[in-house]
Amino acid sequence: MSIVSLTTDFGTRDGNVGVMKGVIWGIDPTIQIADISHEINPQDVYAASLVLDRQVWYFPPGTVHVVVVDPGVGTARRPIAAKLGVHYFVAPDNGVLSSLYERAEKNVWEIKTVHTDNPKYWLPEISNVFHGRDIFSPVGAYLAAGVPLEELGSVITDPMRFTIPQPQRTEEKVVGEVINIDNFGNVATNIRVEHIAGMGDVKVTIAGRTIEGLVKAFGEGELGEMVALFDSFGYLSVAVVNGSASSGLHSKVGDPVEVVSL
Amino acid sequence: MSIVSLTTDFGTRDGNVGVMKGVIWGIDPTIQIADISHEINPQDVYAASLVLDRQVWYFPPGTVHVVVVDPGVGTARRPIAAKLGVHYFVAPDNGVLSSLYERAEKNVWEIKTVHTDNPKYWLPEISNVFHGRDIFSPVGAYLAAGVPLEELGSVITDPMRFTIPQPQRTEEKVVGEVINIDNFGNVATNIRVEHIAGMGDVKVTIAGRTIEGLVKAFGEGELGEMVALFDSFGYLSVAVVNGSASSGLHSKVGDPVEVVSL
Amino acid sequence: MSIVSLTTDFGTRDGNVGVMKGVIWGIDPTIQIADISHEINPQDVYAASLVLDRQVWYFPPGTVHVVVVDPGVGTARRPIAAKLGVHYFVAPDNGVLSSLYERAEKNVWEIKTVHTDNPKYWLPEISNVFHGRDIFSPVGAYLAAGVPLEELGSVITDPMRFTIPQPQRTEEKVVGEVINIDNFGNVATNIRVEHIAGMGDVKVTIAGRTIEGLVKAFGEGELGEMVALFDSFGYLSVAVVNGSASSGLHSKVGDPVEVVSL
Repeated sequence: MSIVSLTTDFGTRDGNVGVMKGVIWGIDPTIQIADISHEINPQDVYAASLVLDRQVWYFPPGTVHVVVVDPGVGTARRPIAAKLGVHYFVAPDNGVLSSLYERAEKNVWEIKTVHTDNPKYWLPEISNVFHGRDIFSPVGAYLAAGVPLEELGSVITDPMRFTIPQPQRTEEKVVGEVINIDNFGNVATNIRVEHIAGMGDVKVTIAGRTIEGLVKAFGEGELGEMVALFDSFGYLSVAVVNGSASSGLHSKVGDPVEVVSL
Repeated sequence: MSIVSLTTDFGTRDGNVGVMKGVIWGIDPTIQIADISHEINPQDVYAASLVLDRQVWYFPPGTVHVVVVDPGVGTARRPIAAKLGVHYFVAPDNGVLSSLYERAEKNVWEIKTVHTDNPKYWLPEISNVFHGRDIFSPVGAYLAAGVPLEELGSVITDPMRFTIPQPQRTEEKVVGEVINIDNFGNVATNIRVEHIAGMGDVKVTIAGRTIEGLVKAFGEGELGEMVALFDSFGYLSVAVVNGSASSGLHSKVGDPVEVVSL
Repeated sequence: MSIVSLTTDFGTRDGNVGVMKGVIWGIDPTIQIADISHEINPQDVYAASLVLDRQVWYFPPGTVHVVVVDPGVGTARRPIAAKLGVHYFVAPDNGVLSSLYERAEKNVWEIKTVHTDNPKYWLPEISNVFHGRDIFSPVGAYLAAGVPLEELGSVITDPMRFTIPQPQRTEEKVVGEVINIDNFGNVATNIRVEHIAGMGDVKVTIAGRTIEGLVKAFGEGELGEMVALFDSFGYLSVAVVNGSASSGLHSKVGDPVEVVSL
């Protein structure tokens, strides 16, 4: 049984996610479909890229990840499909897969990208405003059903990429930024364990607050205490034990975060 | 593998959608289930009808669409099941399928409706307040599992219908109304391409704002520009490129929209 | 085909539910997965327990219910799996299964609990902050795929339990409390039909409002009328016909409710 994941900025109220499943099951009704998120901020390709990089690698080899965050729908931006290691992706060519290409390169995985311009694998009628239904869903379904990547279109080597901001390390400190605030109000930064290697015990400063030392798990802090720790995806995060760090800090994506040795 | 879609006004917090899937899989665990929407405004059968008509026809032939927007639950309103062309529907008899009957008639599809009064295909115990779980889910599951429509109850020919408001065309203009505001803030009207046939280039007036000319895709406008276009379901819509038209216009469902020739 | 249900406080924005499905399908891609709720209030094990008790018993025998409301993640609290009658549960040992144990005892069902300490059935790498992905999902998947409960770890007899508050009955009245407010604004209490047995016709007082008599279905009241009735799970509830009782009453979970004979 093949697996498809869906990530969009559609929300779940209008039925635009449901119709994608209808299209996919019209091509292969045995496909298993998992929703990753449909609450990406509208047109926020950067946020989508980070959510994907946190989640997709836990799916089984061969999974097809269909991503529709598509501000340029109906313009000349290409629809693409990519094989990155053992995972497949179907998306608009607007940089939304940037973190995934980056990880594939870092891990020296096989990378192959095609412009999915073969209309044989689209719906018969293509609207100008909903390629999620008309192009990305059927292409993803055919790929999951076993159609080879090269069948879907012409190989390209220049998918659009944007640069994921990296923390800056100087002699005294590491300066990173907030990249996500989750459902619990945990504030994740782009600082990973390798960025603070050799610094010993550290303190973390964010929004005027300083947290001394890192904990290993939420439960190590007192109820209501603000703690810093590496989250389950390896990002340095600030959390309040059984509470919300973001509501106390008023943090937002892009805010600076500093780490210095204690 | 059979396919069932679910559309309700239950929200997803209370588990009332999850339990419907449990009931369905108790009857046939191989059924694939797609959520269309569970965020229909409570008891808004008109909104549900329009969402359904936008989405269901993209599902494969034989799909069973279970709809539970049911202000009259526990009263004498009938539970019904209908075959409209190659699609099946299970719903309370309260007009929620009106747009679907209308489309089936327009397309001269086969129409057959039954009052699903055969308790053999219900749960053994029926509550007065949750027929979605006790009647509509099991009936939908049995239908998807191959039980013939006529087995589910007595054929009827008078399902409740309400009239979908149609745009009015006079010599100078077409007057329609807002029928949906989606997750992106795009404002959809009930005006379709056939309603403005022969008018040449047009301007659209909504909430005191006038937009001259139509675009084919969001991306044809400038960032932040308000544009008018036919959406992916063929409805005239007003959108802001990578922004929200509804927050600028303060539009709501039912607001008038005018189209005149340029 | 095996069935797994998921109940968490993760929300659906961050992809943490999606990744659990990826992990489950990596172990057995034929498993059917139903979301019960991902909108449990953060860390509210009591609310989760009540939602589960309303929904899980409608799932087919053998279903594995994975529950991740886990304020103690990364601390010494045990991960457990339980067989309660014909249903299986996988959860942190923090009382979140309390109502389910209670019902199993009341119905004299078989009860068996294990501490799922066999790392063979976990992901290879375990984070300190996301056992939903690293422990509960794989354990649930292996259980659904046929691994015997006893294989997953050591049998225990002391799972954590908290007491579900019971209504108090005196000679004049029954005093209960609000336990849930649903998507429609219906206010459910912990008073069940057995608690008011023999009281004849009753009146219900909540938040200073008194409702005389019970109806059997929403539709028996006038539009906008406040009515009291037993909901589809057998709990005494207060509702406004086609409206929201909670917005008029400003009720919240824990508020007292009184029932006296008329």
